[in-house]
Amino acid sequence: MDDKLMLMIPGPTPVPERVLQAMAKHPIGHRTGEFSEIVAAVDVDLKWLHQTQNDVLVVAASGTGAMEAGIINFFSAGDRVLVCGNGKFGDRWIKLAKAYGLNVEVMQEDWGKPLDPDAIGAILQADTGKTIKGVVFTHSETSSGVLNDLAAINRHVKDHGEALIIVDAVTSLGAISVPVDELELDVVASGSQKGYMIPPGLGFVSVSAKAWAAYDKATLPKFYFDLGTYRKNAAKNLTPFTPPINLYFALQASLQMMRQEGLESIFARHSRLQAATRAGVKALGFGLFAPDSHASPAVTAATPPEGIAAGDISKILSKRFDISIAGGQDHLKGKIIRIGHLGFISDRDVLMTIAALEATLLELGYTGFTPGSGVAAAAKAFQ
Amino acid sequence: MDDKLMLMIPGPTPVPERVLQAMAKHPIGHRTGEFSEIVAAVDVDLKWLHQTQNDVLVVAASGTGAMEAGIINFFSAGDRVLVCGNGKFGDRWIKLAKAYGLNVEVMQEDWGKPLDPDAIGAILQADTGKTIKGVVFTHSETSSGVLNDLAAINRHVKDHGEALIIVDAVTSLGAISVPVDELELDVVASGSQKGYMIPPGLGFVSVSAKAWAAYDKATLPKFYFDLGTYRKNAAKNLTPFTPPINLYFALQASLQMMRQEGLESIFARHSRLQAATRAGVKALGFGLFAPDSHASPAVTAATPPEGIAAGDISKILSKRFDISIAGGQDHLKGKIIRIGHLGFISDRDVLMTIAALEATLLELGYTGFTPGSGVAAAAKAFQ
Repeated sequence: MDDKLMLMIPGPTPVPERVLQAMAKHPIGHRTGEFSEIVAAVDVDLKWLHQTQNDVLVVAASGTGAMEAGIINFFSAGDRVLVCGNGKFGDRWIKLAKAYGLNVEVMQEDWGKPLDPDAIGAILQADTGKTIKGVVFTHSETSSGVLNDLAAINRHVKDHGEALIIVDAVTSLGAISVPVDELELDVVASGSQKGYMIPPGLGFVSVSAKAWAAYDKATLPKFYFDLGTYRKNAAKNLTPFTPPINLYFALQASLQMMRQEGLESIFARHSRLQAATRAGVKALGFGLFAPDSHASPAVTAATPPEGIAAGDISKILSKRFDISIAGGQDHLKGKIIRIGHLGFISDRDVLMTIAALEATLLELGYTGFTPGSGVAAAAKAFQ
Repeated sequence: MDDKLMLMIPGPTPVPERVLQAMAKHPIGHRTGEFSEIVAAVDVDLKWLHQTQNDVLVVAASGTGAMEAGIINFFSAGDRVLVCGNGKFGDRWIKLAKAYGLNVEVMQEDWGKPLDPDAIGAILQADTGKTIKGVVFTHSETSSGVLNDLAAINRHVKDHGEALIIVDAVTSLGAISVPVDELELDVVASGSQKGYMIPPGLGFVSVSAKAWAAYDKATLPKFYFDLGTYRKNAAKNLTPFTPPINLYFALQASLQMMRQEGLESIFARHSRLQAATRAGVKALGFGLFAPDSHASPAVTAATPPEGIAAGDISKILSKRFDISIAGGQDHLKGKIIRIGHLGFISDRDVLMTIAALEATLLELGYTGFTPGSGVAAAAKAFQ
């Protein structure tokens, strides 16, 4: 049905009407007091969302651009960094760090399994010469629905003392608590089309004092993503280059909505959405790709019941019910479905998705489940 | 008056209602057939706008990001490049090239004066060892309203034979003909918030076969702006990273409008706007900062009549008439006004601006002009 698309993918996520309307306003000049007021308001709210007094800088780029900024500003060619990957985005940061000539030590875990904080700790402990300058990893791995244990990994990094902790929080920020100051996270990167509830095009990077000290010594070449320039301009409520003005309108509106809802409510909502989605698909005979102990509040990856092709599920959900879910990436293509449940997603949306999933399974002739059981399990999980 | 702002600055430029509405649609997934259709349609239209069969790649970034991509993809550290500057953006490309460790030969002209193609030619001719790998300059210098002689500079670069020509066409593309194939331009960078008539957030880079050959040998580090990745994805109507989906909606709509108007009409309109603006301000006693022979079709910079402060003009135009014009940048702060007339700007808008400028001068107590003479001169220039 035309204009009936419902995004249940892990980004882009649905955008509230009032945010779309804010975005559709005529642009204003970016060197005006009016725009600087927006920059200032957004800055306060971004710090609130990041639970930090650190700088939170905004770049005109996708989340990958934010991560690139989060890496190239703090290192020099040949610097040893530990990049821990357990999914597509982990792979990306390995490639990125290598592209910039860093001495990349890779710690890889299978997709679907969480990173092992103690294994990371062992590498860091063995580094008695303190040559590891940074530990880079993805908090919520979008490709597998795994939530890595930020606090536990962080403890090991803090024990090391020298390395910066650099976190891809693209699908976790705004979905689960990322307490930047409490954990003393050095660099946290995120993107607008996830928990922020606005379309893609803005990236965010929070930078600690320790990271700024590293910045002062870092020699990797940079210009567009030179965060020092952003910091200098941000102090005057300016941006170094023409910012995506209309996305700022959207951001201002969405952050206001987030403040109204409150951090605790936002996190509790995502926790409910996660629990209900997992309970729902499990009741329908799906396998859960990520363990309960490390399940992402943003996205649930699930393996279809035997005999049912992941692609057929997506196709029918899309054609019959105008619900868009994601499939597996790379070697997981055709093997899993991924249901996004972050950002502007309510309990109702999850119930609807599970209900449509039931109808889809029926349409595919699958008889291994009790119709209604998925929705029942999801509803029960809400309680 | 609320919501009455009229942007007569050289970017962001006004956005047509239908483009704003296209942008305000709910996002769709970027890994869908529907989005790939948009990518494909936009690709055809971008090539039409660039008058080229070369790749025209889209990056999620401001125009500066597009220029960075246009430089770092084709060189290695230490490569000798000639960067010609005669304004703020020329300065920026000098800084950018230096930030990446290029061996930058600077040719600088005063702001307001055009680059001297023969002086550039002399440097290139003296380079008998063909060590100059690239010539970088700004076509339309936004900071001064000077249009550099693209064709003449290009002839010298072609005579040299080795160097790539790298053009910042941020405020010229869509305002004046930039015939990429006819001139065999290697790299042309532009941004969305100018002639494209959409908000900022997208950058464009056209790349010639010769530039791709240079790309294969270039070793500057890059990841987010690695144009090879964009090219590979574009061949499948995909983008390497999550694109600003809603800006693509806007782009598709604005390119359709541009095709309806036609290239010749678009260029003729900008030529009229330029002539009328210049005639209008001249009749009011302003000095024209750029010479007639090298006037930008995008923006007119003018020095106020003696005794009138540029800042006062801007202030009254804004407060009384809700018209936003730009001032001078850096050392020209307070010394010039800049009137943007590119993108979604009509003859009517220029008449209105000149009329408001007259009223503003009256309000400032300036008596050195005949009221009505500016509008009369502008109207005459239309003929």
